Amino acid sequence: MNKNQLENEYNSYKQKGKTLDMSRGKPSPSQLDNLWRMLTEITKSEDCYSENGTDCRNYGCPDGIPEAKRLFADILEMKSDNIIVCGNSSLNLMYDTISMGYLFGVNGCTPWGRQEKIKFLCPVPGYDRHFAITKLFGFEHINIPMTEEGPDMDRVRQYAENDETVKGIWCVPKYSNPTGITFSDRVVREFASLKPAAKDFAVMWDNAYAVHGFTETPDKLLPVMAEAEKKGNEDLFYIFTSTSKITYSGGGISCIALSEKNKQVYLKLMGIRTIGYDKLNMLRHARFLSKHLEEVMEKHGRAVREKFELCYKYFEVLEREVEGFGFSRPNGGYFINVNVPAGKAKQVVSLAREAGLILTPAGATFPGGVDPEDRNIRIAPTYPTAGELEEALKLFSICVKLAVSR
Amino acid sequence: MNKNQLENEYNSYKQKGKTLDMSRGKPSPSQLDNLWRMLTEITKSEDCYSENGTDCRNYGCPDGIPEAKRLFADILEMKSDNIIVCGNSSLNLMYDTISMGYLFGVNGCTPWGRQEKIKFLCPVPGYDRHFAITKLFGFEHINIPMTEEGPDMDRVRQYAENDETVKGIWCVPKYSNPTGITFSDRVVREFASLKPAAKDFAVMWDNAYAVHGFTETPDKLLPVMAEAEKKGNEDLFYIFTSTSKITYSGGGISCIALSEKNKQVYLKLMGIRTIGYDKLNMLRHARFLSKHLEEVMEKHGRAVREKFELCYKYFEVLEREVEGFGFSRPNGGYFINVNVPAGKAKQVVSLAREAGLILTPAGATFPGGVDPEDRNIRIAPTYPTAGELEEALKLFSICVKLAVSR
Repeated sequence: MNKNQLENEYNSYKQKGKTLDMSRGKPSPSQLDNLWRMLTEITKSEDCYSENGTDCRNYGCPDGIPEAKRLFADILEMKSDNIIVCGNSSLNLMYDTISMGYLFGVNGCTPWGRQEKIKFLCPVPGYDRHFAITKLFGFEHINIPMTEEGPDMDRVRQYAENDETVKGIWCVPKYSNPTGITFSDRVVREFASLKPAAKDFAVMWDNAYAVHGFTETPDKLLPVMAEAEKKGNEDLFYIFTSTSKITYSGGGISCIALSEKNKQVYLKLMGIRTIGYDKLNMLRHARFLSKHLEEVMEKHGRAVREKFELCYKYFEVLEREVEGFGFSRPNGGYFINVNVPAGKAKQVVSLAREAGLILTPAGATFPGGVDPEDRNIRIAPTYPTAGELEEALKLFSICVKLAVSR
Repeated sequence: MNKNQLENEYNSYKQKGKTLDMSRGKPSPSQLDNLWRMLTEITKSEDCYSENGTDCRNYGCPDGIPEAKRLFADILEMKSDNIIVCGNSSLNLMYDTISMGYLFGVNGCTPWGRQEKIKFLCPVPGYDRHFAITKLFGFEHINIPMTEEGPDMDRVRQYAENDETVKGIWCVPKYSNPTGITFSDRVVREFASLKPAAKDFAVMWDNAYAVHGFTETPDKLLPVMAEAEKKGNEDLFYIFTSTSKITYSGGGISCIALSEKNKQVYLKLMGIRTIGYDKLNMLRHARFLSKHLEEVMEKHGRAVREKFELCYKYFEVLEREVEGFGFSRPNGGYFINVNVPAGKAKQVVSLAREAGLILTPAGATFPGGVDPEDRNIRIAPTYPTAGELEEALKLFSICVKLAVSR
């Protein structure tokens, strides 16, 4: 296709005036429909009691019911004792953790908010909503390149172990958002052995895609807390997960996992904020997922994989035809990481938007929304139907070629 | 009964070794059983859509679904537009509001955390969990006496209108915790016309018992936002309620109601914390309560009233026999406010505890846990069965008389 043909094709999409939003990792309606049996787990008053006798309809059990703790302990390969089960949003728990560090201090230190300067390490490309939290608190972000094994640990150590104003790092250790990379055993062990200069350093370990493999060779993530305990380093880690991408994004449950010492501090401050989280939803989830987690994730995985493979079909063509185009082929997760030729990402995203395809904003995967090379785009193919996705991929391909040709 | 007989009676309770916890306003299991039909409102995938087409299982609609906004608008006698529907804990919303003021400022002003001194007005006796939040942030508390009509407004004005370091006030405007008083129309109008010296003053209006009348003459609370709008004063008010005492304390929904300007600020900051609250539980509640709210509250009211009347029977005897003993007879809510003779509240609560009856700690209804006269005790009779309650009241009566005789 020459440039004129591309322009014509592009304009015909524009004239159709269809809109498709692929900016966020959203489960598809058919994936959600798979879960209907969960809605029948609690349908009468007698269904409302936890295995420990707690009436989940009433106050009590602020750290969560035991079956929900066990569910997350299994997902995270940790001990139930470390886990506090909370509401539907793990992002909210991350915010609360950063906010508590800012207001009341981490590890008994002066609150971050009363220290001169706070820096936070951000593996890039990474998750925009993480960066938005630490940006809100005015932290300085330091980009850490992602390698095939996880964050570049030499750089992590260089900053964390030599600069006391570096107070933490954001991580998505499995099927990382957006690269799809899972941290290697070496990287996990190096995190577990980290000796930060700051006594109030926090590793924000957002294990959102712990059970989200979809190939024959799913990734394995070494459980970091057990490794850290061997080194006496367990207080460094704040671990999060949720069922937002297992059951319902709009009505799931989440947890934070902490060392015993950090848990006591967290519970004390949490006890000022709330009398407790929704225990009926914990019970509904624990009952359903204790029976059906594997089956549910297998079905989810098949559906997600089909969509990823459809993307690969188009991206392979682009890879052959456009120099500097590349993409990830993760074993799980929700995103495909695309690199377009340098200096072209913003243009691709804006061309797509003008023709009705909403993508994650270019740069969003970098702190402050600035991709220094302007080449990274996060593709979120889970929500649309196969038909919509194919249409979107055709348009996306045209936008890439058009941007390059201009 | 002479002192010896009292001591003997008391010791026999102690020997029984029974424990009953009446420290908190908890719904009783039979009240919770009344709600079983709510559990069947959503039992299949097709049940999961809001009236505006939102799939409540997925991300989206961060400010809450329209039917849930309408539910709270009806309860609060406000417009849906002012309302953001959230998770199960309105206390958490109050914490978030205070925290946002501390971190990011109210009404565009310098964050409270960067100002020299912050004072907060606390009508007393009041709700210990309110005071715990502002205490955590290090605010200085100023006690404001409660009158039969609400807080002493001369005092409120004296502080709020003359001292810029006074930044807000805690209120439970209807069936106040613990006094049971509902603010009179005059008091509400005086709040609506308040002209605080501080530009960043926040009235924390916790309308937790909006539909909790249980006598033939339930109290009426003038809706404060409409009054404030008449005076151009709507930005002063942060209004909260929840279904914790309507449906499930352990799995309800809550809301914050704000002026349009404050709502925009709130949503922006909320959008950093979370992608949204549990919409399936909103839908479940909205569907059930749009049909059954009145019936449910009537049943709840009957049950609560019976328990209150049992308390009155014992308290009337104490009133006759013990000089300086007094108690409230509210038209609704969850608590009876008891005054024992000055200097005796701590002793009564500790005698009760030693004999197995856990009451709200004496002083808890005052900031810092200090009741200057040591006479106020909050009685929470909703949770126990009638039999347990009668037993508790007998023991309580003995403890009061014993404390006085010692």
